[in-house]
Amino acid sequence: MSLLCNINTPADLKKLDKKELPQLCQEIREFIINKLSHNPGHLGSSLGTVEITVALHYLYDTPNDKLVWDVGHQAYTHKILTGRREMFDTNRKKDGISGFPKRSESEYDAFGGGHASVSISAALGMDVAAQQTGQNKTKCVAIIGDGSIGGGLAFEGLNNAGVLAKDLLVILNDNDMSIDPNVGALKDYLLYITTSRKYNKIKYKLKRGFNRVPCVSRFVHKLWTGLKSSLIQSGNLFEAFHFRYFGTVDGNDINAVISVLEDMKNIGGPKLLHLTTLKGKGYQPAETSQTAWHAPGLFDTVTGKRCSDTSTLLRYQDIFGHTITELAETNKKIVGVTPAMPTGCSLNIMQQVMPDRVFDVGIAEGHAVTFSGGMATNGLLPFCNIYSTFMQRAYDNVIHDVVMQGVDVVFCIDRAGIVGEDGVTHHGLFDIAYFRCVPNIIISSPLNEHELRNLMYTASFGGNGAFVIRYPRAKGVLADWKNEFEKIEIGTSKTLKEGSDVAVLTIGPIGNMAKKAIERAEKDSNISVKHVDMRFAKPLDAKILHEVGKTFTNVITIEDGALAGGMGSAILEFFNDNQYNNVKVERLGVPDRLIQHAHIPELLEECGYDEEAIYRAIIDKNI
Amino acid sequence: MSLLCNINTPADLKKLDKKELPQLCQEIREFIINKLSHNPGHLGSSLGTVEITVALHYLYDTPNDKLVWDVGHQAYTHKILTGRREMFDTNRKKDGISGFPKRSESEYDAFGGGHASVSISAALGMDVAAQQTGQNKTKCVAIIGDGSIGGGLAFEGLNNAGVLAKDLLVILNDNDMSIDPNVGALKDYLLYITTSRKYNKIKYKLKRGFNRVPCVSRFVHKLWTGLKSSLIQSGNLFEAFHFRYFGTVDGNDINAVISVLEDMKNIGGPKLLHLTTLKGKGYQPAETSQTAWHAPGLFDTVTGKRCSDTSTLLRYQDIFGHTITELAETNKKIVGVTPAMPTGCSLNIMQQVMPDRVFDVGIAEGHAVTFSGGMATNGLLPFCNIYSTFMQRAYDNVIHDVVMQGVDVVFCIDRAGIVGEDGVTHHGLFDIAYFRCVPNIIISSPLNEHELRNLMYTASFGGNGAFVIRYPRAKGVLADWKNEFEKIEIGTSKTLKEGSDVAVLTIGPIGNMAKKAIERAEKDSNISVKHVDMRFAKPLDAKILHEVGKTFTNVITIEDGALAGGMGSAILEFFNDNQYNNVKVERLGVPDRLIQHAHIPELLEECGYDEEAIYRAIIDKNI
Repeated sequence: MSLLCNINTPADLKKLDKKELPQLCQEIREFIINKLSHNPGHLGSSLGTVEITVALHYLYDTPNDKLVWDVGHQAYTHKILTGRREMFDTNRKKDGISGFPKRSESEYDAFGGGHASVSISAALGMDVAAQQTGQNKTKCVAIIGDGSIGGGLAFEGLNNAGVLAKDLLVILNDNDMSIDPNVGALKDYLLYITTSRKYNKIKYKLKRGFNRVPCVSRFVHKLWTGLKSSLIQSGNLFEAFHFRYFGTVDGNDINAVISVLEDMKNIGGPKLLHLTTLKGKGYQPAETSQTAWHAPGLFDTVTGKRCSDTSTLLRYQDIFGHTITELAETNKKIVGVTPAMPTGCSLNIMQQVMPDRVFDVGIAEGHAVTFSGGMATNGLLPFCNIYSTFMQRAYDNVIHDVVMQGVDVVFCIDRAGIVGEDGVTHHGLFDIAYFRCVPNIIISSPLNEHELRNLMYTASFGGNGAFVIRYPRAKGVLADWKNEFEKIEIGTSKTLKEGSDVAVLTIGPIGNMAKKAIERAEKDSNISVKHVDMRFAKPLDAKILHEVGKTFTNVITIEDGALAGGMGSAILEFFNDNQYNNVKVERLGVPDRLIQHAHIPELLEECGYDEEAIYRAIIDKNI
Repeated sequence: MSLLCNINTPADLKKLDKKELPQLCQEIREFIINKLSHNPGHLGSSLGTVEITVALHYLYDTPNDKLVWDVGHQAYTHKILTGRREMFDTNRKKDGISGFPKRSESEYDAFGGGHASVSISAALGMDVAAQQTGQNKTKCVAIIGDGSIGGGLAFEGLNNAGVLAKDLLVILNDNDMSIDPNVGALKDYLLYITTSRKYNKIKYKLKRGFNRVPCVSRFVHKLWTGLKSSLIQSGNLFEAFHFRYFGTVDGNDINAVISVLEDMKNIGGPKLLHLTTLKGKGYQPAETSQTAWHAPGLFDTVTGKRCSDTSTLLRYQDIFGHTITELAETNKKIVGVTPAMPTGCSLNIMQQVMPDRVFDVGIAEGHAVTFSGGMATNGLLPFCNIYSTFMQRAYDNVIHDVVMQGVDVVFCIDRAGIVGEDGVTHHGLFDIAYFRCVPNIIISSPLNEHELRNLMYTASFGGNGAFVIRYPRAKGVLADWKNEFEKIEIGTSKTLKEGSDVAVLTIGPIGNMAKKAIERAEKDSNISVKHVDMRFAKPLDAKILHEVGKTFTNVITIEDGALAGGMGSAILEFFNDNQYNNVKVERLGVPDRLIQHAHIPELLEECGYDEEAIYRAIIDKNI
């Protein structure tokens, strides 16, 4: 660590001799591996971008020049070089630094990260603002992966940048991976221009060849001129968007990266540098198993052994994966759709058994939904699995291409609710509220593994239109998760416990925490609590709500999501519209502010709906 | 009309001889012009696609083969040929046929239209479903404009189709227009391959040239082989996505279109046919002024004179256009952003005066917002104008790229509320609800032109983060719209009238209708009504709500938007959370069902918040 320990800002980095940069990269790599072995984070992508990051901060004038990291989980080196090395142990912890770039954290974080494909649009905005405000020297750089550049937003950015950019560099960090291996036609194309290099070779060969054959020189000169303009204009996908294309260059060779960036630095207009990198570069286990080491959890740096989880409980995502496979075996209409998350959502379980019926469409949430809508019009029943936070990117597709088409698509919304360490950009807090205003949509959430299976089973009959099933990033609660399927009537709740003083209405697995709080509260006081698992936020169970409205004055609603417009809000609408004016409702859930990163229990406490908070809310009604 | 009057289905069309098709096209064109002259609709785009539509239904086996019309306002010929000619007078009217394809209307409408860029994804879904279910003969066709194909979703569709499609034809209907002239790098690229045809010419010339020069034959053969594979693989943007590219062909020449489609019909895999068409084709005024004749309203077919509106009141969109121009003259940070709607949202007013500060980014709502976010990080204050229904396509961008970045962007949401004849896909009903759950966002709506100007003036100071100003597709109410600017305190309401029996809380211009209803109700009964223009759905004016909560038992809320999760719902949350249990709230607005097309007054009546309904709601409180 002889070099790294003296670098606290890019100014320190610039003092190094170019020859020292390979050693620095090595030190950074070791630093990241060591830190992440005992404080988990995104390993693979950050190991792949060490050289790119060192080169950019070495050559560019950050923070005056703007670096925009797409997604941002590859930006650890950036954080380490910009004053956050010493606090890196706090990465992703409560009150610590974020696992993603964040504007409020550092002036070097030109744009906050988290979601994919946004960097070109954001960096172009900075470029145009520089033009408008006379920042003549400001250079803007978007660093985007080959997975992210396949997202539609990236193309919208390229299309606009081609006519607006004054000095925009897009670095395509091509490691042929999303979290899972990258997919799609573009992936093939990038591989093609990387491996064959025919595009560049043909130009070189033609020129050299023509010079060797003087007898055809006039003819070929004319041809060459036409050919050249043809190749320049339409020879490369990115050049079709008016970008100058440079590549491919080994992005893990610091000398090569420095050299090409120096060549390109003073070329104006929109330009794209295509770098090939290795995800997990420099750490053998991560190079070998790239998906597993995307975010490996705790591990032993020497043996490369990842700390295994001793719990026997499965995650909700695994229940999803096993259950869709089971349902699809007998129901031939069922197909699975995921935007680049087969491992993340456990659809890979089905993929292994019936690969032809699982569609990983790449980082393209909008397409995933509209594609599902199209399949549903022609005889299939798609189960489209998207994380809650990413479903925000396909909101209109759900409304326009599923709901308004009147077709059946099941939306399994993973990572709904507080997700913990990934923080503000990844919590899935808004889905109940943003779906609730849309007509003809079913919004459900299971209490536990059996309910998840039953909801999926119910949805598999079709005939219900858009059917949302949301569940959290969490383990289940049942050792014996594999029940016999049972069909659930849409819009019916399940009363878990009768009681007379307070009615607790929950939705989703947070109900299990409520159960414990209720038990404690009843033990510690004379209060008698009725507990209803609502199961559906839409349609609400009118029967049970009429019963509660007539019988109770104290109601507590609990949901793992935003309070504004959420299920509790829907219940208020019901009580008001049905004139149950005596009911006082206390709504527990996520308050109206941005929730940062920390462990899930810490955040539930902060938001006021952990077991203790629920317990207190109940006890307080004991008047 | 000798041919057209006998065509009620595509089967009738197929009986015609090819030679009769030009006449049929002419008859269809006349039919459309005549019908639209007295029942307004989308003229220009439908005139451009007559030949494409005739050719497709002539050659393809619809409805077994699937035609997916992107956006769908160009599908009038499709409707006329598929059994809806005789009811075409009901187009866009209450209980009449929709102005867009609609699955519930006809088996020939494979997918409902309305929003742009969805057709490739939807048609690919149908293609994949055909593969999965053994529909071996089914062919799927997406017909998409050059404006729509620039939307990111279309690229996501191409990227996925390149690896999945078995028999998918994408017809690129290139008229170089969105509603306004098309923009972006891709537009240049399409123009390039259309006008120069270098791409095809160079291949032809090279081959011919090499054959003429035997002395270099071995050398050039090797070159040619490399060149050919290079051109095929990477020579054309669409070929980079594994599409076979055919074009360009004159899409208004029925013989040419028939001929190329016949050639292509039995070629499998993903393929793209690039047709050039003329928007407004065959009707001189529409050919000349394409933007004005996109949807011209009533007109005289002979003189080409459009019926002018005699009202002197300006539309809210015009107030926006004039006001942003006025503000931008003194505030150099202000820029305007629109996704392909400079005329539709009246940003063209500013564009004429300061073209360098207005950014039409093409049909790319997501990019419009993220680009605005990027500009806001680097010294500008973007006013980003997006229709409410299209804002659904940039929902995550608002959350992730503006709100979470903590930057100032003003979102002027046009066409908020019921929009009338464009119908279910175009109403802007959900914005209050879907924005309300997001923290750190301001949601406002002006009562009238002065308030719109004041809200924009207030937002122009910056410092407020994401600032939403929603207003309807409507004319204002004030003859003298140009007031002196007045800054409004965020989250304050305006009491329009004091009263003691009922409190009517409105947001937006619907408050003007409420005013009239209140006047009538007070005249017809002894009831005394307090009327508050809430102005902000978020943050709510806590002061006035405390006052109302303490004083009134009868409250009516009125909003031009979805009731589920809307402003009324927010007020219920407030009253509940602040224990105003005696308040009974009647919420008027859009009920929880899909609202179809009709005139706005008809739909307000249907939804129960027209003047009469408000009047009755007030009178009913007179007990």
